[in-house]
Amino acid sequence: MSLYIESINNLIKEFRKLPGIGPKSAKRIVFFLLKFSMDDITRFSKALVEMKEKVRFCKNCFSLSEGDRCSICKDESRDKRKICVVEEASDVIIIEKTSEYRGLYHVLGGLLSPIDDIGPNEIKVPELVNRVKNENIKEIIIALNPTVEGESTSTYLKKILEPTGVKVTRLASGIPVGGDIEYADEITLGRAISDRREF
Amino acid sequence: MSLYIESINNLIKEFRKLPGIGPKSAKRIVFFLLKFSMDDITRFSKALVEMKEKVRFCKNCFSLSEGDRCSICKDESRDKRKICVVEEASDVIIIEKTSEYRGLYHVLGGLLSPIDDIGPNEIKVPELVNRVKNENIKEIIIALNPTVEGESTSTYLKKILEPTGVKVTRLASGIPVGGDIEYADEITLGRAISDRREF
Repeated sequence: MSLYIESINNLIKEFRKLPGIGPKSAKRIVFFLLKFSMDDITRFSKALVEMKEKVRFCKNCFSLSEGDRCSICKDESRDKRKICVVEEASDVIIIEKTSEYRGLYHVLGGLLSPIDDIGPNEIKVPELVNRVKNENIKEIIIALNPTVEGESTSTYLKKILEPTGVKVTRLASGIPVGGDIEYADEITLGRAISDRREF
Repeated sequence: MSLYIESINNLIKEFRKLPGIGPKSAKRIVFFLLKFSMDDITRFSKALVEMKEKVRFCKNCFSLSEGDRCSICKDESRDKRKICVVEEASDVIIIEKTSEYRGLYHVLGGLLSPIDDIGPNEIKVPELVNRVKNENIKEIIIALNPTVEGESTSTYLKKILEPTGVKVTRLASGIPVGGDIEYADEITLGRAISDRREF
């Protein structure tokens, strides 16, 4: 005798595909959803499909958009001489929240990873090089995570962008604001020392 | 400028209603879903609606069912003189997995909680009393969680079922198998001592 009804099993399987949801949380979520009304379930299911139908990627910078071009690329008040290179579309939102940056973006959609067969052509590197050549770009700000893949992608971008004459910068590393020197790891502290700024 | 596209915001809101999913995990899940194909999203959305359409509750014991009566109530090989009382339909599955029990079930759908205005009529207590009176029940096994609400619901059930002459038992409390006496809390250890069994 199968203990679970098939439709419950199917839904548990779908939830298990999501990040951070294991078998126990998937089961807990599905039993929680059993108590939802049909209206609530319909709203959830519509939100899923609508998100997929409506969200597009900007043809210029590959960040989220509802049309061919995103609101940042279309915004005439942005500084069109700067491009901030990020890994994912969600990173654009994180950087926008700081209100520190008024330039454009370029979403790579991943990082170089020879082990997973991800080379420059699998992510939006050729498109970035084209933008540097065709738009009037003065500065590329690399804002990738300081992981092994992030660092090697940054180094690769610096190498292929240098011949175009564009200025290539990257985010400062150092002690987080409100952080404690005692708890900073050695690499971060070392970089904070070598990148020290005049006070 | 709104940073999130409305349809993304809507979906984040839906995921935040689920247990164990906070604002950061909801955002992470939605950005993960952005990479799903339309087929994958349709499958997910259909699984949600189908679960709601197909899953019913057994009219006899209120556990999950695809028809009017669940597979356990319909199973002629089960011991129809015993009812195991549980809080939620998911508890039936947990007990079935032990293969230790061959009787029937009764899902209360909650626990007594005067603070939340949940009395015996808000959960399936009257239905349980009817079953004890109308079916040929010899034993009620109370399998509620040993929390404050679980214990007071158990005590209440014992009190109202006693006059019917049915035998009322509850799950044994004690040291978990593979557990360590040193790490057991005092109440559990105390109950393990008072409920000690001949060896």
